[in-house]
Amino acid sequence: MLNPVVVPEAAERIKGLVYVTPLLSSSILNELLGNTILFKCEGFQKTGSFKARGAFNALVKARESSSAKGTRVCAFSSGNHSQALALAAKQNGIVADIFIPFNASAIKIAATRAYGANVIITETRLEAETRVAECAQSGQLVIHPFDNDLVLAGQGTACLEALTEASPDAVFAPCGGGGLLAGTLLARNLSKSRAEVFGVEPTLASDAQSSYQQGSIVGLPSPTTTIADGVRTPRIAERTFEYIKQLDGMLDVSEADIIYWSQWLSHLLKISVEPTSAVAMAGALQWIRSTGSRGKQVLIILSGGNIDPTSQKLIWEESYLDRLPNLEGSYVK
Amino acid sequence: MLNPVVVPEAAERIKGLVYVTPLLSSSILNELLGNTILFKCEGFQKTGSFKARGAFNALVKARESSSAKGTRVCAFSSGNHSQALALAAKQNGIVADIFIPFNASAIKIAATRAYGANVIITETRLEAETRVAECAQSGQLVIHPFDNDLVLAGQGTACLEALTEASPDAVFAPCGGGGLLAGTLLARNLSKSRAEVFGVEPTLASDAQSSYQQGSIVGLPSPTTTIADGVRTPRIAERTFEYIKQLDGMLDVSEADIIYWSQWLSHLLKISVEPTSAVAMAGALQWIRSTGSRGKQVLIILSGGNIDPTSQKLIWEESYLDRLPNLEGSYVK
Repeated sequence: MLNPVVVPEAAERIKGLVYVTPLLSSSILNELLGNTILFKCEGFQKTGSFKARGAFNALVKARESSSAKGTRVCAFSSGNHSQALALAAKQNGIVADIFIPFNASAIKIAATRAYGANVIITETRLEAETRVAECAQSGQLVIHPFDNDLVLAGQGTACLEALTEASPDAVFAPCGGGGLLAGTLLARNLSKSRAEVFGVEPTLASDAQSSYQQGSIVGLPSPTTTIADGVRTPRIAERTFEYIKQLDGMLDVSEADIIYWSQWLSHLLKISVEPTSAVAMAGALQWIRSTGSRGKQVLIILSGGNIDPTSQKLIWEESYLDRLPNLEGSYVK
Repeated sequence: MLNPVVVPEAAERIKGLVYVTPLLSSSILNELLGNTILFKCEGFQKTGSFKARGAFNALVKARESSSAKGTRVCAFSSGNHSQALALAAKQNGIVADIFIPFNASAIKIAATRAYGANVIITETRLEAETRVAECAQSGQLVIHPFDNDLVLAGQGTACLEALTEASPDAVFAPCGGGGLLAGTLLARNLSKSRAEVFGVEPTLASDAQSSYQQGSIVGLPSPTTTIADGVRTPRIAERTFEYIKQLDGMLDVSEADIIYWSQWLSHLLKISVEPTSAVAMAGALQWIRSTGSRGKQVLIILSGGNIDPTSQKLIWEESYLDRLPNLEGSYVK
């Protein structure tokens, strides 16, 4: 594990380049659940997710280390990392080559192009990964979405910021590749907060939970269909597993739970909440119910606000808004 | 017309009771449309809409004038006004009786109850109106959603706040009963801003536009089915017509336009935008296109963020997010 000081170093490096995001709360929700739930709203971050933090940290550092201003950077990603890296590259005068499989969301491809990246569409995910590996071999700078120390240090700045305003008893974040959780754990350690840190995954993509339970990395046997597109990553990295092992728990939540909280968080907070972010809230409620927690402060990292229109359609197909959040566990149809 | 000073008086009266809402902007949208579009985000207002401003102004003033702390207040509303009045009454130690027809949104009924109001469900809208008229005759305090000077003065505080941060060339607000527009016009007059003020309605509910054009109040011939539920009001009042006459224009927009901007504003700003608020943006774009405006500052009052789940389902049935906003007018399928 890195020295936690890399997180405030990242915060210093990306200051003014990314936003300080708001910490929101809903008095109605707090009353219903008997705890104070604070939401770190990374949907308001540049490019709409926390990924801007890691991408900027890695790229600014790369530019500091290299004298070549014309370096190219390259990555594989079908999601938020590609948009974040595209913007970070553009603002650092670097060309970004982003390899995206043809079946990725059209919206995310368009946004990545709009942020100035050179988008290369591939036939498969495997082809995209191969092309990135070739770039790496030819000496091009590759920024992996989570298997990168500068990236995970950058992601930790979200929790670090929140801890200047809050003193949570527990922190919940979604787990894809584990970069956000690794950074969050470092931020917790640095701040000497006594908060427990939990990772949450969809049951349909609970490879990190299995890895946590078995003590060794287990990948998903086949591609997952969870609506939480930000955490479909098939396996965590050795680098992030070192942190995930240290967590206070890994929880998994159902698709119905994810849709329920996608609806309710948007309804209560009046913001766009990605299904991936709703995952964290669903896990927090599971923890509140199982521990009987009352009067505690709970921090949820809402990872982003980029919701694909096909996900929106799925989310709103059937309404859960007539079922109030509660502590008994009977809200899902 | 009232002396515009009623707006800062209202602002002083409700200070600390309602929120100062943020003014947001999207650099991507500004680039696409060649103008700076500023959004006053009333979805973050208490109870999720600007209606809290007018309700608090009216109720605080009523409590100041009357020595009776136990007064009851009564209203008819199936929408945002009922929630706002419920909260304002609760915080002023007043009982609120809200008459709502049985076919109103279950979510809005639940929210009104959650804010502590005594909700009475009626068979029809007419019955609700009759019951409120009876309350008025028996001396009970009635707070009309727009036909009330204190209410419209309160609504004007949204624009007044925005004008401390911005110097728009044009301001756009949706038009239901006309209270928000009346207050907005007063705020513009007071601030000596040279901004033109425009009202926008769905084409399916353009009674205020007809009234503006004909110089006398015209009501809707039959109930409207527009998705913009906040502006389904069948007719404006003589009181608000006095202001609407003075506007720089009344525009009307299609249902497809409303759905398009409900999607795009949520996508760009990462906030919940009611169809009623999207109406104002659709009108602003119409104005930008017809005048050829470039490099100007445009203020849009996003009236609220309370979106019914049935509306969400309608909004996301078909995606418009693959059609970028543009100045040519070809984005709607």
